[in-house]
Amino acid sequence: MHDDDEVSGRVTLAAVAKEAGVSMPTVSKVLNGRSDVSRTTRDRVERLLQDRGYRRRASSPPRSPLIELVFHELESVWAMELIRGVDGVARQNRATVVLTESGTRHAPAPDWLDGVLRRRPLGVVLVFSLLPESVKRRLRAAGIPFVVIDPAGDPDPDVPSVGSANWAGGLAATRHLTDLGHERVAIVTGPEDMLCSLARLDGYRSAMAMAGLEPDPRLTRFGDFHVQSGFEHALALLEGPGRPTAIFAGSDLQALGVLEAARLKGLRVPEDLSVVGYDDVPLAQWSSPPLTTVHQPLRNMAEEATRMLLTPDDSGKAAQRIELATHLVVRQSTAARPAT
Amino acid sequence: MHDDDEVSGRVTLAAVAKEAGVSMPTVSKVLNGRSDVSRTTRDRVERLLQDRGYRRRASSPPRSPLIELVFHELESVWAMELIRGVDGVARQNRATVVLTESGTRHAPAPDWLDGVLRRRPLGVVLVFSLLPESVKRRLRAAGIPFVVIDPAGDPDPDVPSVGSANWAGGLAATRHLTDLGHERVAIVTGPEDMLCSLARLDGYRSAMAMAGLEPDPRLTRFGDFHVQSGFEHALALLEGPGRPTAIFAGSDLQALGVLEAARLKGLRVPEDLSVVGYDDVPLAQWSSPPLTTVHQPLRNMAEEATRMLLTPDDSGKAAQRIELATHLVVRQSTAARPAT
Repeated sequence: MHDDDEVSGRVTLAAVAKEAGVSMPTVSKVLNGRSDVSRTTRDRVERLLQDRGYRRRASSPPRSPLIELVFHELESVWAMELIRGVDGVARQNRATVVLTESGTRHAPAPDWLDGVLRRRPLGVVLVFSLLPESVKRRLRAAGIPFVVIDPAGDPDPDVPSVGSANWAGGLAATRHLTDLGHERVAIVTGPEDMLCSLARLDGYRSAMAMAGLEPDPRLTRFGDFHVQSGFEHALALLEGPGRPTAIFAGSDLQALGVLEAARLKGLRVPEDLSVVGYDDVPLAQWSSPPLTTVHQPLRNMAEEATRMLLTPDDSGKAAQRIELATHLVVRQSTAARPAT
Repeated sequence: MHDDDEVSGRVTLAAVAKEAGVSMPTVSKVLNGRSDVSRTTRDRVERLLQDRGYRRRASSPPRSPLIELVFHELESVWAMELIRGVDGVARQNRATVVLTESGTRHAPAPDWLDGVLRRRPLGVVLVFSLLPESVKRRLRAAGIPFVVIDPAGDPDPDVPSVGSANWAGGLAATRHLTDLGHERVAIVTGPEDMLCSLARLDGYRSAMAMAGLEPDPRLTRFGDFHVQSGFEHALALLEGPGRPTAIFAGSDLQALGVLEAARLKGLRVPEDLSVVGYDDVPLAQWSSPPLTTVHQPLRNMAEEATRMLLTPDDSGKAAQRIELATHLVVRQSTAARPAT
């Protein structure tokens, strides 16, 4: 309890305890994520801490040299790239990575947070689009910095985050195909409720317009980011006449599904069908043929997020948002439009 | 220093301190991985702790609910499966995973250990073949259990470990191919200095002998476990006359390299060439065609190792070694030998 009387700006814990009608040890427990405080009390104390502008000094009590990395889905092919990025910067700073898989695509599960408050890490990197207000409030009250890696492109303006340039990625992929003479270019993008899918689709549309092409609406499909989705949409697209000569997939995994659909249809890639992926995860180089794809700098994004944690911006400015550039990597899954 | 006078079996820390000619706080520092102890003193105290049979009680001082997972190479496609296995069991036990990438294929780097001793985790899962004596000694003195996941099949008899049945895997893959009528079956296995490579090669030889076939020594190759190795060996194997009609690769990544070599040579898989991988990591299902492969139960191995940590065997028996079964998963990269 050595920090009970710590002064941060104007407010002291003693004042908060008094106002909340609880003891100082109770306020300490709230700050340290202890579970022996009722939920009502915890909420009341946290709100007061926030309203009164209380911030724990970063140096007190001492932090563990840990960086917490919280995912909703470890099985994603992204996960390893992100882990490596966080781990690299953590090691440079003599810190160790604590890994948590929790919650859904949108937000971590609540029990995860108690562990973080007890461990008192240097900071938390979250791979989520949206953080519940209560999570932000508790992390802030405890003085633990956090940054969101948000490949979905839907940043909370209130939270520092790192994303990448989805619209530009969609544009680059599609221009590459129209430059190769393709006119019937299909897009299988991600879920319709994710901004990254919409941004890439808009990039595709702009590139088509720049090439003087009117996209056939039947060639636009929303999938998820998994192999099966690419496979099924590609099978449907490759049925019958008027099939596309090129497919721009929403992820490298989708692109692998497209490759398999082409094989089953007896189409050679890239001679009969060009395929572009998205992400440039390691397996993009290992497919047969190796994938032309949009490089999403996942490892750099994770490195940048970790650096933001370790060098917090105390200037009181609005939360920082960084978007890293994407670029096209041309490999062997794309070629000139086949003669008809 | 509340544990200085703890009694474990016969020996007390006080006795060790006296014998080592140091103070009790110094002995405590050694046990807690503090860096402000000279290396000579630390070595002397640790040896005495070990010789006198000192073991910290598991409960004292309290452990952090952390499981440490130590890798030499996060980029391996294995890594994610192992992380998920450890994380699953850790979460069931309300513990969190701390991840460290350190050292070489054989042993972790020394600085890693100080962090572990400071954090006092519930236990350590190491993905290494060999642990230096000093690492084992320090972990034992600190009463921190550890288990090795050893897919290389080269267990230290002194350390609890989990591996898998490499010989049986090599046998199953090769029998599948000879059952399909293949006679010229090539093997591209792992490095010659890893027992898992040799065990699989012996399984291959036994299966060939069971089918009444004499393996052509030119069709046996040692590579590493990466894509490029499979690609280069397959290109060489597929040159000229007398080429194999089937290739058994040492890993799924090698098998992807074989697929790409076949594509460049204009050979269809599986019509002209059958390919079997090893590991059954997720990408084996995503390749085109999906890979027939030997399932190495990486996630189960990691789960088993974590359970061994959390339910230590205190019976004083020799270290435990568990080998989990491998099995063949038949997908679409293998077919009957082509008519000649």
